[in-house]
Order: sequence, then structure tokens, then C-alpha cells
Amino acid sequence: MTQATQTQTAPGFAPTFTHLVSKEGGVKYPLKALHVCEETFSPLEVAYDYEAIRNQVSRATIEAGPNSIWRYKAFLPVESQNPIDVGTGMTPLVKSHRLARRLGLKNLYIKNDAVNMPTLSFKDRVVSVALTRAKELGFTTVSCASTGNLANSTAAIAAHAGLDCCVFIPSDLEAGKVLGTLVYNPTLMAVKGNYDQVNRLCCEVGNTYGWGFVNINLRPYYSEGSKTLGFEVAEQLGWKLPDHVVAPLASGSLYTKIYKGFQEFIKTGLVEDKAVRFSGAQAEGCSPIATAFKEGRDFVTPVKPNTIAKSIAIGNPADGYYALDIARKTNGNIESVTDPEIIEGIKLLAETEGIFTETAGGTTVAVLKKLVEAGKIDPEETTVIYITGNGLKTQEAVQEYVGQPLTIEPKLDSFERALERSRTLERLDWQQVLV
Amino acid sequence: MTQATQTQTAPGFAPTFTHLVSKEGGVKYPLKALHVCEETFSPLEVAYDYEAIRNQVSRATIEAGPNSIWRYKAFLPVESQNPIDVGTGMTPLVKSHRLARRLGLKNLYIKNDAVNMPTLSFKDRVVSVALTRAKELGFTTVSCASTGNLANSTAAIAAHAGLDCCVFIPSDLEAGKVLGTLVYNPTLMAVKGNYDQVNRLCCEVGNTYGWGFVNINLRPYYSEGSKTLGFEVAEQLGWKLPDHVVAPLASGSLYTKIYKGFQEFIKTGLVEDKAVRFSGAQAEGCSPIATAFKEGRDFVTPVKPNTIAKSIAIGNPADGYYALDIARKTNGNIESVTDPEIIEGIKLLAETEGIFTETAGGTTVAVLKKLVEAGKIDPEETTVIYITGNGLKTQEAVQEYVGQPLTIEPKLDSFERALERSRTLERLDWQQVLV
Repeated sequence: MTQATQTQTAPGFAPTFTHLVSKEGGVKYPLKALHVCEETFSPLEVAYDYEAIRNQVSRATIEAGPNSIWRYKAFLPVESQNPIDVGTGMTPLVKSHRLARRLGLKNLYIKNDAVNMPTLSFKDRVVSVALTRAKELGFTTVSCASTGNLANSTAAIAAHAGLDCCVFIPSDLEAGKVLGTLVYNPTLMAVKGNYDQVNRLCCEVGNTYGWGFVNINLRPYYSEGSKTLGFEVAEQLGWKLPDHVVAPLASGSLYTKIYKGFQEFIKTGLVEDKAVRFSGAQAEGCSPIATAFKEGRDFVTPVKPNTIAKSIAIGNPADGYYALDIARKTNGNIESVTDPEIIEGIKLLAETEGIFTETAGGTTVAVLKKLVEAGKIDPEETTVIYITGNGLKTQEAVQEYVGQPLTIEPKLDSFERALERSRTLERLDWQQVLV
Repeated sequence: MTQATQTQTAPGFAPTFTHLVSKEGGVKYPLKALHVCEETFSPLEVAYDYEAIRNQVSRATIEAGPNSIWRYKAFLPVESQNPIDVGTGMTPLVKSHRLARRLGLKNLYIKNDAVNMPTLSFKDRVVSVALTRAKELGFTTVSCASTGNLANSTAAIAAHAGLDCCVFIPSDLEAGKVLGTLVYNPTLMAVKGNYDQVNRLCCEVGNTYGWGFVNINLRPYYSEGSKTLGFEVAEQLGWKLPDHVVAPLASGSLYTKIYKGFQEFIKTGLVEDKAVRFSGAQAEGCSPIATAFKEGRDFVTPVKPNTIAKSIAIGNPADGYYALDIARKTNGNIESVTDPEIIEGIKLLAETEGIFTETAGGTTVAVLKKLVEAGKIDPEETTVIYITGNGLKTQEAVQEYVGQPLTIEPKLDSFERALERSRTLERLDWQQVLV
């Protein structure tokens, strides 16, 4: 389907989500803006009628759907016939040749959300779902606590949908993420503190103002959007699950929802059941889940983040417990890498595949490399890495490590001297050469 | 088609391009790396066997093709069964609601190449075609003269394809465009001069070195990639042509190739013939084509560029003559806008549609507004504007004009004071408020 304008929905569509349910204890709640169980204090999740989904969808109906996340609408918690569709999703799954060869892998794929629409990160998926649901629930102002990508996405999609928007970020964010929020003209609050402090403030604000916080009171709906990263990979592999996935871990939500996506495709008969290994990537400067994994703990001890990978710098990850559980039961690993390794990861992906990712993506590539070197990924395994954001947003991180152009006069002999010089210099020694 | 990996081509595909031909005089040349007719000095263009195309394609075969520019392979000058496919093309055609309402238009569409893959500008289209052809012609080093977007795209896609790459840019480019080239590790030459001087140097280099310059000796193949911006719009409108298009003018190539794309779809029976008005957008600081249009000249007098819209700052536009011809014969207009109007155009598009474009896109939006206000666009016309690049690459242009975040402490009362203040201040008066 390539028609312009807003989404077409498959005929005969009826909502398939039935209630909210607490992850522990199975306490049921109505489909409102709620996110924590008052009895068990565990997070709430959306529950579906999978029999109804099975009756509504098939591979063929999905393939005939819109070229966006809304082809999986039956699996998403929205009622609208016309959800907010800005072309989000269906990003490329690239078969890697040059990176795979460099690492000695035979079946490596890159899920490239660095070019997701409209704001170049996977957050456009969760925000498209959350703001559609926010409108259904009657919210006119939407908000979020963000490490940057979510701010970009919430501000942009709220602008498109004509919703008022107030966004909260830590005050030390990368310039590209600040500008890439301000341009959509939301109210932007830069909080002097780290993400976890921003998040706590937003919980307070949420209790006081009647706003829809996409990742707080709307979180059960919002987080379901990440399942589409699982759905798309399965469909793009020809309706098969991979053997192994490597994804970044911030709150742990993305990772657990990819898992849930695969399970739902199995449950509804869209793919065959098989074991998929789930590995996770953290930056060493904020690696509470990796640390718990290595120490064999099932609880996560919060840390104070200190890393260039700001978009995944969540010291107190809400879904850390569930991420640990999935990594262990699928025979995966959770590994961390240093900031210099993250920069090398960004450069490696760019040089071999032509994909410029932000620090979170560099973390994932560096962890992939580390796992391969440790023999924890079989070269024959069909492995998918998730690249979740674009490098143009975190230019500061690599600015000093990519060299400089060779500055020349607009004359052939000036060019020739520079070319000669570039061929004799090692790349790392490059300087701003004025010939 | 949503399968991963490299492109599948429609079965039975055979090349449909037959020779090169001079735009004036019809002198024929073989399908080599040639770009100027030695007899007439006019540019060379690719010629096709349209009867063969008509026999190969239908709306159905195109719709069943890959979700990229390669669904139109029969119209592109490549022989390979596996062209370089990094997901380029099939960007959203967004039906505008909020911008349309603001301007008083009823049928406005936005073709959003700000999210084109992999490097977020329409240049990925032309480079995918040029590098595929470069490999077919045996080149191992590729090159270009660029105002930035082309540099990003050539370096990225060359990295993906494993080609050596040397890129030339003016030395005063935006930081994001320089970094967004360097990260792919090409040889990057920053020339102390404007684009026209860079281009002249590259012509000299091209005569001396056996490199494939995508926009010089490979230009006839390269420029054909822009036709896909015409093809996609026609297909996305439900196999109909629009009434009016507004596109930016740099060399004039994009504009003339959209026109050629529409004509080819008519010629091969894929859409019905109809009149489409072609309007063009330039920045006042580099508006040689707009000036010639207003003065009724059919030749373009070169200018020295001085505008923030660097990606379209070509003072001596190669296809200016042809752009003027198309604007006149289709009853279109060519208009220019000032740098402040360009910035307002960027902000207007972001605030109303959630699309963050670079200066070229701001120019197009501002020209659209100007044409509407002058009564030169009928509110009922189906009008398509072409947004050709992403705002994250030209952050300098808007940095000072989008305000600042409100800096607060991580406390509810600090937030509330800031919110109160933001509601009483006009946006333009916002300062870095420390509460």
C-alpha cells in the first residue's frame, strides 16, 4: 500500500485489547490512563484477546496494510480508525555484508531505526501509539520525561496532531536533541539533574496536572509500540524469527517488548515457534542491568549515569528485572562497553555499512563485537542488531574522532599535494592541512 | 514487498536504456561515462526504448516491486540485477492538514525526503543510481562536487558498496554536513571557494584521474535518479498527477527530472495526461534562475551566492535554461525568498506538520507561502511541495531563532514558576530562564 494521506485500516477492524493487567498477580484494570497496580505496585500492561486477533489478521492482510507500524494495528492498543500516521516504522532490515565480514559473521542483519520517521529514532513508534491513545482518552496536552529522542518525537508528532506539548529533559543534553525539540515549538523544560530526577519530577507533575505523559500514565499503551520492532523483523525475514537479537538497554522496555512481539506472532500463528536468544547492550558508565546480569542478581541496583551514551543513560531502569529474566531464560547475554568502544562502534558501522548512528547504536555495535570476540555469538546464527537512533543528533560524541577535511585551494596542484599527503599519512594522524 | 536483503528485481527484467543523446541536436553517444556533447556542447541525457518499458511494467508490477526507488528500475539507467539498495526512496507523501489550513489551501501534500534513507536527503536517490552505474562501468573510486547533502550520500553509499571515495565540498559548510561525511571515512577535500569553484576544480580532476564523479562524468545516469520523486508522487496520489508542484532550484536538475518523470509515466500509459504547473524556489541570496524568470530572459546570468541556504547555493546552474523553459510552458512561477523568510519557513513546517527540514526545505515552504499570498496557487489545486533534506544538518541556521529551554530545578515549585512564566511571555521573548 503506497497511497498518500492518513492510514487506511483493514476492513472489519475491531479493537482487540480488552483491559490492563498488573504484571505481577494479574490484577485487572479498565483501559484508562493508569500505569501502576495499586495492590501489587507492579507495572500495568495491556491485555488482548488473541483469539480475536487471530481471526482478524493473516500474513496476507498485514502485507496488504499500510507501509508503517499500523499494518500491525490489531496488536496495538488503539481504537481509532485513523491513528496518527506519519510514516513511522517499516524501516529497512539491512543484510550486512561488510560489517559481517569484518566480524566474521555469516548471517548478520541491521534493523535501521536511525532512519525512522519522522524524528529518526525508534521513539516515533511508541509516540505514535501513545498520542493516538492520548487523543482517544481525551487528553489535549501531552508530555514526557526524556533523554532526548523521546522529546524530539513527542514534540514533532504532537505538532502534527495539533496537541499541546510540554517536554522535560535533563539540562545537559546534546545540542541536536535540544534544537530538534525546540523547532516544533513545545514548552521545553530543561531540568538541572539526570534522567532519573527528571522522571521523578514528571511523576509529581503527572499527579497534579491532567496531562498525558506518554511514558508515565500512558506507559502501558506507549510501550506496546516497541513490539513493532519485533513484528517487522519477523516479517522482513520472510515470516521467520531470527536466532539471536542484540538490542540496547535503557529502561529495558524496548528489549522486553521485542520479546513480547515475537511471542505474540507465535501465539497467533504468524510465525513458527522457535528459541530466540536475547542479548542486551549497555554503556559501562550506566550499566546497572549488565552488572546485575554478571553478578547473577535478579534485582537491579540503581546507579548514577556517567557516559556519552545519554539516550540510554537510565540509572534506575523500570523494566530491568524483566530484561534480566528474558536474557537468562533465552540463553542471551547482557554486556557493557566503554565510551571509547562506543565511538569505535559508531565509526565501524558508518565505515562498513554507511549507517550513521548515535551513541546508543554505537553501544549496540560495540557489544556485538565484544560478544563475537568472546565466542558468545555463533557465526552461523541469524543475528539481528537494533540500531535505534541517528548520529546527527549526537555529533559531539564523535566530532573529535573522525578527523578533519583536507583544506585546499580551488586549484589542481593544491588538490594533488593534499591527495599525496593523505595517502602517506595514517588516518589518525590527519590534521587540518592547509596546502 | 518487505523482504530484507538486497533488491529483488521483477522477473524478465532487461535494460531499457539504449544510448546517450545530446539535449540539443540529438547527437548519439554510447552508454559510457560521458556528459557533454562534443559537437553541440549541450549536456547528454539517457535515452530509453519506451516501447520496451511499456511491455515490461504496469501499475501492478511496480506495486509488487521493492519498497524503494528500484520499483521503477525499468525507468532507470542500470543493468545490474542487484543494484545498490539501501532502502532509498518511497518516502512519505503527507497530506497536510495544519499547514494547509494555515495557508488557506485545501489539497496540499508534502513529499518528505527529509527522512530519505540512508542520509536524509533526496541525494540518496541520485547517488544510488550513480554508484550502481559506476560499478557497472568499472569504476573503483567515486567522487563528487557537493554543497553537503551529496557529500553525505556519496560517502555513505560508497562505504556500503565498498567503493573508494573522495569528496569535494566548499570549506564553509555547516558542521553537520562535514561530520556527516567524515564519519564514513572517505577522503574529504574542503575547498576554499564557493560551490561553483569546487565544481570547476572537480572537472579538472575528472579529466586527469580515472574516477567516477557522480555529478560530472556520471551525471547523465545520476540525474535520472531524481525522476523517482516524480514517479512516487504519481503513484502515491493513486496513479494521478498533481495540479501543481513547488520544488527547490539549485542546478535545476531535480526540477527538470520531476517533469521528465511525469512525462515518462504519461508516455508509458501509467497515468493519464494532464497539465501540471511547475513552480520553483530559490533563496534571494542565490537566485539566478528566479531573476531570469522575472526579467523574461531565457538565459541565466551567474551570481555569487550569499545565503544560509547553502545546499541550493549554486550560482551557475547547469540546468537553469531548462528549468526556465518548464516553468514558462507549464504556467508556473519561479520565486525567491530572503534568509529570514527561509527560517520562518523551517519553523512553520515544524510547528504545523512535525517535519524538521533544512534551509532548502524552508525556502520551498516560504516560496509556497509567497505564491499563495500572491494568488498564484489556487486553493483547490492539488499542490505538492518537495522537502528535500533534514534540519539536523543545518542546525546553525535556526539555532538562534527557536528560543531556549526553560531551565528549572528538579522540583515541582520550580516547574510551576517556569510554566507560569512561559504562559505569560510571548515566545519570541523567551530567555534562558533560571527559576
